Amino acid sequence: MSVDILIKKIKEKNNPTVAGLDPLLSYVPEHIINECFEEHGKNLSGAAAAIYKFNAALIDELSDVVAAVKLQSAYYELYGWRGVRVLDETIRYAKEKGLYVIADVKRNDIGSTAKAYAGAYLSGADVGGEVTPAFDADSVTVNGYLGTDGIAPFVEACREHKKSIFVLVKTSNPSSGELQDKKIGGDAVYEVMADMVNGWGEGLIGESGYSSVGAVVGATYPEMQKILRARMPRAYFLVPGYGAQGAGAADIVNAFNKDGLGAVINSSRAIMCAYKKTGDAANFAKAARAEAERMRDEITAAIG
Amino acid sequence: MSVDILIKKIKEKNNPTVAGLDPLLSYVPEHIINECFEEHGKNLSGAAAAIYKFNAALIDELSDVVAAVKLQSAYYELYGWRGVRVLDETIRYAKEKGLYVIADVKRNDIGSTAKAYAGAYLSGADVGGEVTPAFDADSVTVNGYLGTDGIAPFVEACREHKKSIFVLVKTSNPSSGELQDKKIGGDAVYEVMADMVNGWGEGLIGESGYSSVGAVVGATYPEMQKILRARMPRAYFLVPGYGAQGAGAADIVNAFNKDGLGAVINSSRAIMCAYKKTGDAANFAKAARAEAERMRDEITAAIG
Repeated sequence: MSVDILIKKIKEKNNPTVAGLDPLLSYVPEHIINECFEEHGKNLSGAAAAIYKFNAALIDELSDVVAAVKLQSAYYELYGWRGVRVLDETIRYAKEKGLYVIADVKRNDIGSTAKAYAGAYLSGADVGGEVTPAFDADSVTVNGYLGTDGIAPFVEACREHKKSIFVLVKTSNPSSGELQDKKIGGDAVYEVMADMVNGWGEGLIGESGYSSVGAVVGATYPEMQKILRARMPRAYFLVPGYGAQGAGAADIVNAFNKDGLGAVINSSRAIMCAYKKTGDAANFAKAARAEAERMRDEITAAIG
Repeated sequence: MSVDILIKKIKEKNNPTVAGLDPLLSYVPEHIINECFEEHGKNLSGAAAAIYKFNAALIDELSDVVAAVKLQSAYYELYGWRGVRVLDETIRYAKEKGLYVIADVKRNDIGSTAKAYAGAYLSGADVGGEVTPAFDADSVTVNGYLGTDGIAPFVEACREHKKSIFVLVKTSNPSSGELQDKKIGGDAVYEVMADMVNGWGEGLIGESGYSSVGAVVGATYPEMQKILRARMPRAYFLVPGYGAQGAGAADIVNAFNKDGLGAVINSSRAIMCAYKKTGDAANFAKAARAEAERMRDEITAAIG
């Protein structure tokens, strides 16, 4: 099971953090941007080249510190198909470097279309009868608003291709409660979604006891982490909101089980833009590494 | 307002149908696939080339019959970044031909990321201080599970760049009710979402009286169409599920207001694959046109 592969990497590095590679162009050090604009023009090609250079340097420095990277698709799509090509290149490079790669795409659609999305990110495209990988990530995030038939093709891809998914349950943003906290009978919408996650994940429990169908549960709602941890004991949690979104180590302890496992904690801006605090743009990757190490130590101490 | 532009195109063509361009490779006539595999190889490049050729020919034939096209992003992402490049090229070509272009991406994320998605599809990327269009669609579909701050950046893009969005309310798939039909107090989740759509759309009412914040409401649930039509009088409906998903003209009349406006009806497979019924693959585009005309006549008669 894919979740076992993720856990193995977490144990190897003694680090449940995920480095988010969400490369908004304004996060990229100026010297890289200037170099790429000079070579490719001040356009989407130049922007995409800068992003790849930034990502590759971050991966080189982070690959022995973190278990996984999470690529937020929006920051690649923002730069058009050239940006999306960099999404593909970054997935490949991160996998080469031994990282577990989560494509944060939050896809959702009816069954036939969900099957195409599962093909795009997990199981490959049928090209003249041959299965051809497109964006070959280890895992994707999905949105369960459409119910089981929108998720089933992803679950099938997990089973057949050793992949995993994380389903949005309780998101980290301020207004997530507008729908997610509303009560259906005695349960909040996020609890109803949690029960669906349990159902979808039943057939995908690995040797670790965890399922390859995980859940996105925001660090910014620690009390709900607790409730959801109890409600989905076998789901691995992908926890966003740490760092730039305001949550700290105390806010994520509830996401873990007593075995010290059960969650990966994402930080994007705080790692990518660490160099803006040190003021040393030339050594942006070292600054990212230092922040990832600081975060590792902080989190392992908190859950230890 | 963007919704007024859409309505103008609908009136010009006397046709509220949207042709869905969801080009799974198996929908593309064999002679195109063979030609493209020969030129580019039996790989993602060849697949992408075939899809573009198919799309362009369909657009040529359909652009004076339908008001709009809807591009389902999954069927482009399935073929990797090369497929996504074809998404971009198809958007450009369809706009050149005067069509209103809906990118069916169902994106959803926290505020900062939603802003990047809105940039990607509606308002452009900031590249060294210059606004540079990425995928320059007229409209996107979005998923409101994250609440207001995940939708606000799209609404802002609609206001500033004359664009529109369609928010998932009640989807056409069989299991959509698992969450969407559940009751929150006296209302179904889809009604709660409908009220949110009304709120998001308030500031974007055009001369037509309709808002540029619309709703996705599946043709496969005609009774809910009725309820939602009354609940969101100013929202334009994007109605999937007609044709291959089983709904007919009688199932979509409830989506329209008494002014004969208020909805666009999408058909993808039935139009794209019409040639499979006639058995004349050489004239696939003519077969698509005939089906789009048949659908136009059927729908205009039903709502007349």
